[in-house]
Amino acid sequence: MDKKRVYSFGNGQAEGKADMKNLLGGKGANLAEMNLIGVPVPPGFTITTEVCNEYFEKGHDTVVAILKSDVEAALANVEKLMNSKFGDVGNPLLVSVRSGARASMPGMMDTILNLGLNDKVVEGLVAKTGNPRFVWDSYRRFVQMYGDVVLGMKPADKNEQDPFEVIIDEVKEKKGVKLDTDLEVDDLKTLVAKFKAAVEAQTGKSFPDDAYEQLWGAICAVFDSWMNERAILYRKMEGIPAEWGTAVNVQAMVFGNMGATSATGVAFSRDAATGEDLFIGEYLINAQGEDVVAGIRTPQQITKIGSERWAKLAGVSEEDRKTIYPSMEEAMPPIYKQLYDLQEKLENHYKDMQDMEFTVQEGKLWFLQTRNGKRTGAAMVKIAMDLLRQGMIDEKTAINRVEPNKLDELLHPIFDKKALAEAKVLTKGLAASPGAACGKIVFNADDAAVWAAKGEHVIMVRVETSPEDLAGMAAAKGILTARGGMTSHAAVVARGMGKCCVSGAGELVIDYAKKTLTVGSTVLGEGDFISLNGSTGQIYVGEVGTKEAELDDDFAELMKLCDKHTRLVVRTNADTPYDAVMARGFGAVGIGLCRTEHMFFEGEKIRAMREMILAETVEDRRRALAKILPYQQDDFKGIFKAMAGYPVTVRLLDPPLHEFVPHYEKEQRELAEIMGVSYETIRVRVESLHEANPMLGHRGCRLGNTYPEITEMQTRAILGAALELKAEGLITYPEIMVPLTGILHEFAAQEKVIRETAAKLFAEHGQTIDFKVGTMIEIPRAALTADRIASKAEFFSFGTNDLTQMTFGYSRDDIASFLPAYLDMKILPNDPFQVLDQKGVGQLVRMATEKGRSIRPDLKCGICGEHGGEPSSVKFCHKVGLNYVSCSPYRVPIARLAAAQAAIEDTL
Amino acid sequence: MDKKRVYSFGNGQAEGKADMKNLLGGKGANLAEMNLIGVPVPPGFTITTEVCNEYFEKGHDTVVAILKSDVEAALANVEKLMNSKFGDVGNPLLVSVRSGARASMPGMMDTILNLGLNDKVVEGLVAKTGNPRFVWDSYRRFVQMYGDVVLGMKPADKNEQDPFEVIIDEVKEKKGVKLDTDLEVDDLKTLVAKFKAAVEAQTGKSFPDDAYEQLWGAICAVFDSWMNERAILYRKMEGIPAEWGTAVNVQAMVFGNMGATSATGVAFSRDAATGEDLFIGEYLINAQGEDVVAGIRTPQQITKIGSERWAKLAGVSEEDRKTIYPSMEEAMPPIYKQLYDLQEKLENHYKDMQDMEFTVQEGKLWFLQTRNGKRTGAAMVKIAMDLLRQGMIDEKTAINRVEPNKLDELLHPIFDKKALAEAKVLTKGLAASPGAACGKIVFNADDAAVWAAKGEHVIMVRVETSPEDLAGMAAAKGILTARGGMTSHAAVVARGMGKCCVSGAGELVIDYAKKTLTVGSTVLGEGDFISLNGSTGQIYVGEVGTKEAELDDDFAELMKLCDKHTRLVVRTNADTPYDAVMARGFGAVGIGLCRTEHMFFEGEKIRAMREMILAETVEDRRRALAKILPYQQDDFKGIFKAMAGYPVTVRLLDPPLHEFVPHYEKEQRELAEIMGVSYETIRVRVESLHEANPMLGHRGCRLGNTYPEITEMQTRAILGAALELKAEGLITYPEIMVPLTGILHEFAAQEKVIRETAAKLFAEHGQTIDFKVGTMIEIPRAALTADRIASKAEFFSFGTNDLTQMTFGYSRDDIASFLPAYLDMKILPNDPFQVLDQKGVGQLVRMATEKGRSIRPDLKCGICGEHGGEPSSVKFCHKVGLNYVSCSPYRVPIARLAAAQAAIEDTL
Repeated sequence: MDKKRVYSFGNGQAEGKADMKNLLGGKGANLAEMNLIGVPVPPGFTITTEVCNEYFEKGHDTVVAILKSDVEAALANVEKLMNSKFGDVGNPLLVSVRSGARASMPGMMDTILNLGLNDKVVEGLVAKTGNPRFVWDSYRRFVQMYGDVVLGMKPADKNEQDPFEVIIDEVKEKKGVKLDTDLEVDDLKTLVAKFKAAVEAQTGKSFPDDAYEQLWGAICAVFDSWMNERAILYRKMEGIPAEWGTAVNVQAMVFGNMGATSATGVAFSRDAATGEDLFIGEYLINAQGEDVVAGIRTPQQITKIGSERWAKLAGVSEEDRKTIYPSMEEAMPPIYKQLYDLQEKLENHYKDMQDMEFTVQEGKLWFLQTRNGKRTGAAMVKIAMDLLRQGMIDEKTAINRVEPNKLDELLHPIFDKKALAEAKVLTKGLAASPGAACGKIVFNADDAAVWAAKGEHVIMVRVETSPEDLAGMAAAKGILTARGGMTSHAAVVARGMGKCCVSGAGELVIDYAKKTLTVGSTVLGEGDFISLNGSTGQIYVGEVGTKEAELDDDFAELMKLCDKHTRLVVRTNADTPYDAVMARGFGAVGIGLCRTEHMFFEGEKIRAMREMILAETVEDRRRALAKILPYQQDDFKGIFKAMAGYPVTVRLLDPPLHEFVPHYEKEQRELAEIMGVSYETIRVRVESLHEANPMLGHRGCRLGNTYPEITEMQTRAILGAALELKAEGLITYPEIMVPLTGILHEFAAQEKVIRETAAKLFAEHGQTIDFKVGTMIEIPRAALTADRIASKAEFFSFGTNDLTQMTFGYSRDDIASFLPAYLDMKILPNDPFQVLDQKGVGQLVRMATEKGRSIRPDLKCGICGEHGGEPSSVKFCHKVGLNYVSCSPYRVPIARLAAAQAAIEDTL
Repeated sequence: MDKKRVYSFGNGQAEGKADMKNLLGGKGANLAEMNLIGVPVPPGFTITTEVCNEYFEKGHDTVVAILKSDVEAALANVEKLMNSKFGDVGNPLLVSVRSGARASMPGMMDTILNLGLNDKVVEGLVAKTGNPRFVWDSYRRFVQMYGDVVLGMKPADKNEQDPFEVIIDEVKEKKGVKLDTDLEVDDLKTLVAKFKAAVEAQTGKSFPDDAYEQLWGAICAVFDSWMNERAILYRKMEGIPAEWGTAVNVQAMVFGNMGATSATGVAFSRDAATGEDLFIGEYLINAQGEDVVAGIRTPQQITKIGSERWAKLAGVSEEDRKTIYPSMEEAMPPIYKQLYDLQEKLENHYKDMQDMEFTVQEGKLWFLQTRNGKRTGAAMVKIAMDLLRQGMIDEKTAINRVEPNKLDELLHPIFDKKALAEAKVLTKGLAASPGAACGKIVFNADDAAVWAAKGEHVIMVRVETSPEDLAGMAAAKGILTARGGMTSHAAVVARGMGKCCVSGAGELVIDYAKKTLTVGSTVLGEGDFISLNGSTGQIYVGEVGTKEAELDDDFAELMKLCDKHTRLVVRTNADTPYDAVMARGFGAVGIGLCRTEHMFFEGEKIRAMREMILAETVEDRRRALAKILPYQQDDFKGIFKAMAGYPVTVRLLDPPLHEFVPHYEKEQRELAEIMGVSYETIRVRVESLHEANPMLGHRGCRLGNTYPEITEMQTRAILGAALELKAEGLITYPEIMVPLTGILHEFAAQEKVIRETAAKLFAEHGQTIDFKVGTMIEIPRAALTADRIASKAEFFSFGTNDLTQMTFGYSRDDIASFLPAYLDMKILPNDPFQVLDQKGVGQLVRMATEKGRSIRPDLKCGICGEHGGEPSSVKFCHKVGLNYVSCSPYRVPIARLAAAQAAIEDTL
C-alpha cells in the first residue's frame, strides 16, 4: 500500500494524534489531538511533512498528481461536516491553507485564508449571509493574501509600502476616510478589481477563479515558503534541519468578522512575559485572527483583570475601558466561560502553558490552534516552578522545562535605579519582552545589521515588524514598535530571542523617509540614543545606565533543584576578586581558570613586565620579576580570599610577550628612558618579538621553559598568597596550571621548577600548602599523548578555545573571512568557537580524558574554554565524564542548569 | 651473586665475546672476540658500560670501592701474561686506558696511554730496554696526556695553543731545533719536569706517582668524558642515548716507538672513501698510534699499490717514495704478510669492511682494535654490492648495509667540468671525503657556526682539527686542513658527516692571528671564496660552479634491489616539468604533490593572479581567471608529459591570497594603473587581506569554497591538459587534491564543483579522462573525522608539514625562538619538522588511515610532507600501511632505500 499522505480531522474524530508531530507538524498533530479530547476545531485535513520533501524532490506537477484524489476525498468530508460545498455558489465552503512544521516557526511561512472565493461565489455568499460587507471584505483580504503569497505580489524593496496597501490608501484618500472599517461595499469591490488588475500588471498572471486551482496554488505556496529566505534564516538560528519539512493544513474557514457576535483572539493559559499563573489574552470583535497577530489594531484583553491592568498601563480611564475596550469576560460572558474552561482543559492535558488561537463565529467558539507557549526566561523559570508546586510535573520535568540559554535573559543588566530616576521619559508602550536596552536609533533591519556589525548598540524602531525584519531584530539590542500588542510579531519574536521589546507605543510618529521619530515636540533621529525598559514599557530619551539583574526565589529554587540532580561541578573563569565574588553569587564552586596576564596591564605592573621582557640577561630579568612579585601575590590573595574553601586553578603566563610591549615610538622612547637603554635597543628587541603566527608561537609553557624565572616568580606569588591566607586562618586549594603543554617533557620541566620553588618557599616559611600541578589540554598533541602527560599532571583542563583553533586550523582572529560563508553553505552547523565541535574537538576531549584516566584513574578533568557555559557543550562534558566545567560568571547558572539536564538525561 | 663488572681477555682467551657489545662496548667486545678467533691482541680487561651508569648515579668514591678487587685481580692476570708488574721499577707493566661505547664515537672521549710510569719506573724501564729516549718520550707523552685528560690542563680558549705544546716549542727554540724527534733525552727530562710544574701551577694538583692512583684517575676520567661537551653534542647528532654509557678498556701497552723495527698504523680492509676492494692503510715507523690518527706526521702507505697512488697524487718521485716513504709491504714484508692475512680473516669473520689499529713492537705485530669501518656513501653502496656479488652477504643484508641518509652524499652536486677547467688551482691535499664544496673561508669552529647561521656557505680551514671543532665542521660546507692524513680527525669525522674534506695540504701556511692562508704568493683572507674537491684533493681559488652527480651502476643495482624488496611506492613532489624529469631519473613513479601556486609567480601570470585576487565582483574574478587558465593548462601539460603513464596529484590553490599581492606602494600603484582602479582601492584591498595568523587563515579549500570559480578554473586547466595529451596518445592519471580539508562538507562542496566542471568540460570535448578527487589530510580534525571524509574522498595525502604545525601548535616560521632550547633540554628529541613525531602526529596518520579504510578499504594513502624523504619517517609510513611516500627529487633514492629496509624488517 502506498503511504498515507492526507490525514482528516473534524467533529471529535481524527486520523492523526498528538504523537504524530514529525509527520503532521505541530499544528496538524494538535488539531487532531484537540478533536480527540473534545475541543471544537473547524474540520479539515493535514498533508504530511513527507510530502514537503517529495515536493522538493519531484516537483510541483508530480506531487499535485499524487495528492489529487486524497485531497478531493478529504475535502468532501469537510464539505459534509460543514454542510457546504467548495466552489459552490449557493452554499460555498471556504478554507484556510496553513503551514505547520515539526517545530514552531512563528510567522515564518505563508498562510492563505478565505480560499474558495471568486466573483460568483462572493455573490452567492452575500445572498446566504446577508452580510455583503463581510463577504467583500473577506474577498478583498483573500485576493490580497493570495496575490502576495501565491502570485508573488511584493513591494519592490523593504522601504517601500506593500502595493496593495498603496491601493487601499489611494481609495481611502479619494473617499476621505482614515480607517479600513470606514470603507463600504462598493469601495471593497473597487479594491478587489484594482487588486486583480494590479496583480496582472505586475506579475503577468491573471487571478484564478477556479476554487481547486486556488487550492493547489496555495498548497504549493506553503511548501515553497519552507524555502523562503526568512524561513531558512530562522531555521539556521534555531538549528532546525531543512529535511524536517512543513505539513500543510487545509481547514474550513470560520469567521471572526461576521459582525458583533463574532470575534477572534489569542490566549495564553499563563502570562508568557512574567509566568504568572493567570489566564491572559487579547481579542478583537468582528475581526480575522491575523488582525490580532499582525498588530494592526490594538486588541482588547480577554480577562477583566488583564483589561484593568492594561488600562492602567495605557492610561485609559475605567469608563473608556468598559465601553470602548471591554474585556471578553465582560462583553461575551458565555463564550468567555467556555474559553476559560477549554484553556484549563488544554493546560491540564498538555501539562504546560498553552498558546491558543480561537475564533467566535456568530456566537460559536472555534479553537484554531493550541501549542506550548513561547515565553521569556523569567516566565520559563516561574512556570516550571509553579507547575512543580502545583503537582502537575515532577522535579526532573521542571528542570527540563527551562532552556538553559534563556536564563541569560534573567541575568541581563537592568536599568540602574539612580540613572532611571534622572532619565527623561519619552513615552510608554507595552512591556512586550523584559529587560533593559539602550542604543542608537535605526529605522530598518538592514541598518540595524550594518550598524551592529560595526559594533554599535542599536535599537530598531519600526511602526510594526514583519518576518522580513528578523535579521535586524537579531542584530539590535532592543525593538520598539508604534503599533501591535503583546502578541504582535515584534513581541513574540523578541521574547523568543530573549531580547528587550516595547511594542504598541501609539504616541510615536515614525517617518521612515526622514528617519525621525516624534513624540509631541521631541524629535529623535537616526543615531540618537534611546533606552527601553521591556519589563515596564517605559521609553527614555538618551542613554540610561544599567545594573545587574536581581534574581528571584524561583530562580534560586531552580538552581537548588539543579544542584540536587547534577553530577558535573560548575566553576568560573575569574581573573579578579570582583569576578570571583560575583561568580560565587551565581553558585560557582571554585575557579577553573584564573588568567594571570590580565593582572599585568596596570601602571607599575606593566612597566615592570616590560622591563622583564626586554631584559637582556637572566639577572636583569630576575630583577624585573622581583618588582612584579608583590603585585601578583596581592592579586592572588584577593582572589583566593573571595574563593576561600574552594579550588582555584591559576594558569601561568600564557600570551606571547609582544602583547605586553609598546609598539609605538613614543612609548618605546619612554620605556628606553626608564630602563636606561637606547631607544634603538628597545625598538630592535620589540621587533625581534614579532611573530608570523603568534597563535602558534613563543607562548604558554614555551615561555616558562625558556624563561623558567617567570614560572618561579609566579609559583612564589601563588603559594606566597596561600601562605599569607593560611596565617589568617583561611583555607585555599591552589592548582597551578601549565598552559599550552604539547609534550610530556615540557610539562615535566615546568613541574620541576614549580615543585622546587615551592619546596624552597615552604622551607623559608616553615609552613606548607597543599597544591596540585596540572596542565591545560589545548594542543592536539597533548590530547593524543594524554596518557603520557597524565603520568606527571595531576589535573587536565581542556582549553577548548585553543584546541578548536588548532584542531580546525582556524585563527579566531581571521575566521570572519570565511565563517559566514561556511555557515551559509552549511559546511559548519554553527560557529565552533561558540558551540563545541563534538565530532572533532570533542573526540580529542573524550580521548584525552580516557587516556589520562587509564594512567591516573582519579585525574580531575575540566573544561575552561568559552564552551564551558554553552548548554550543548556542557551536556557533552557531562557525557564524556568531566569533573567540572568553568565559564564566565554570568554563564554559571546556565551551565548549572545544562549540567542538571545532562544528568537527568542519563536517568531517562 | 653480584653482577660481573670486569671482563678479562688475552692470549687467545676471553670472558666476553662479540655479541656482548651493549655491556662491553664495541671495543671491549671486539677485543674479546679477536682473542677468541686468534688475532694477537695485547691482554687486558674491560669495565662494563653498566659501571658507567653506576658511576654517574653513585659517584666516584663508591664506584672505585666497588671495583677495586675485580680490577686488581684482572690486572694481576695481565701482569702474568705480559710477564711484568704494574708499578714495578724493575719490570714494569704499562697500560692504556680507553673508552669504548656501544656505538663508535671516534675521538669523542679521552684515552690515556703509557699509564704506570713515574720517576722511578722510568729509570727501571730505561735499564730494562736500554732505550732511554723511547722511555722518556713515552713518559713525557704520558704526563702530557694525563695532565690534559685527568688533571684538566687545557688551553684557556680555542684560539690559544695547548699549554704543553707551548713548553715544547720553548724548549725546541732554546735548543734551536724544529722537530720533536730532534729532542734528546735530557730535553725530554726537562719537558717532564716543566710539564709537572706547569700542571701544579695551573691546576693546583700535583702529578700522581702511584701507578694505582694513576689508574683510578684514568678510569674515572674516561667515565667523565662520556659527559663532556663534545661527546654530548656527538650523541645528539647521532641520536645515541646517554644511558648507553661507555665501557673502559685497560690493556697492556705495546709500543710502536721502540725503534726501527717498531711501527704503528691504521688499516682498512677496503677503501673507505671509494669502497674499492683493496686493502689500504697508513703506518708510521717508530711512532705511537695517536701520531697516525692525530695527523701530526704525514704517514706512509701500508700497501705498495697504495703507496704508488699516493706518491702520484702528492707529486713524490718513485725514488723518494721508495726511500723516504716506503710502504710497509716493501719495508717490513713478513709483518705485512701477517697483517694482510689477519685483515682478510677479520673481514671474512665480520663480513664487512674492517677498520683496524695495529702496533708492531720490535718486530711483533699486535692488533689494538678492529671494527666495521665508517665509510662514505659511495663506499657504502659499493662495498654492500661487492660483498653481495662476492657471496659474503645476501640481498637483504646488502640493502641494510646502506644508511639511507648517506645516499645524500652521492646525490650532491659535483664541480661543473667547464667551471673546473677555468678554475685556478691553489694547491692539492688528500681526498679525505668526497664531493665538491665551495664557500667563504673561516678559520675557526665558532666563526663557522656563526657565519653558517647567517646563511653563509663556509669552508673551515684549520692546521688540523680536533674534537672541539665538531660543531664548526657540522656547520661548514667543507673542511680543509694543512696537516693530517686520510685517517686524521678531520677526514674521519668529515666522512662520517658526508661532508667534503681535503686534508694534509702541506703547502698551506695558516696564520690564525691574521686570519690568512698563504700558498706561495697567494694570500687568502677570511671571507674569501675557496673551492674544494674532496674526491681528488684539489683546492681552487674562488667560487667554482657545481653540477649534479652522476650515479654509477652499483647505485642503480642497489635501487633495483630495493624495488624488488619494497612494498611502499615512492613518488616525488614536483611543480615543474624539470623537477618531474629529474625525479623520474631518481626512480620516482608518479607525483604525490604538484603545488600549483608556484606556477603563478612569473610575469603575466602573477599580474592576472593579482587582478583575480583584487577583483571586486565574481565577473571580474572570472575574467582574470580566464587569463590564467591557458598558462595553467600549459604548465600541467608539461608536467603530465614528463610523468606520462604515472599518477600526478595536483593540489588546488593553497596559500593565503596576500602572498600573491604587492605589499609596497610602488608595485601597488603599478597594479592600480593596470587594473584601471585607484591606488587607494588596491591599498585597502591588500590591507583587508592581512591576517593575524595567516597559517590558520583564509587558505586551502577555504579559498576554493569562498571563490569556487578558482576551483573551476584549475579543474579546467588540469583536465584540459589531460585531454590535450590524450589527443596526442599519452596516458595521464590526474588526481585532483583538495587542500586543508577539515570538514566532510567542505570537501564535498569542492568535489561537487570539480565533478560538475569536469562533466561540462568532457561534454564540450566529447572525450573523458579518468581522474580521482581526494584530499590532503593536514588538519587534525580531518584525521579525527577521516571516516566521514573517506565517504567522499578517493585518496588521502598526509601533509605532515601542516599537520605537525597544528598538532604541536608550532608555527614553522616562529619556532626558532624556542626550538633550540627544546632540543637542548631534550624536551624534543629532534626537530619535528624534519623527523616525523610518531607519538603525536604519527598517531593521527595511523588513525586517519585506519578510519579512512574502515569506510573505503581501497583508499589510497600517501604522505607528501618533508618527512616523505626522511628515513625513519618513511619506515613509519611503511609500518602504518601507507601506499606511497612523496618527497623532493633528491630524496627519492633515500626514500626508496628506507622503504625497502622497512619491508625487509617485516620479514626478519
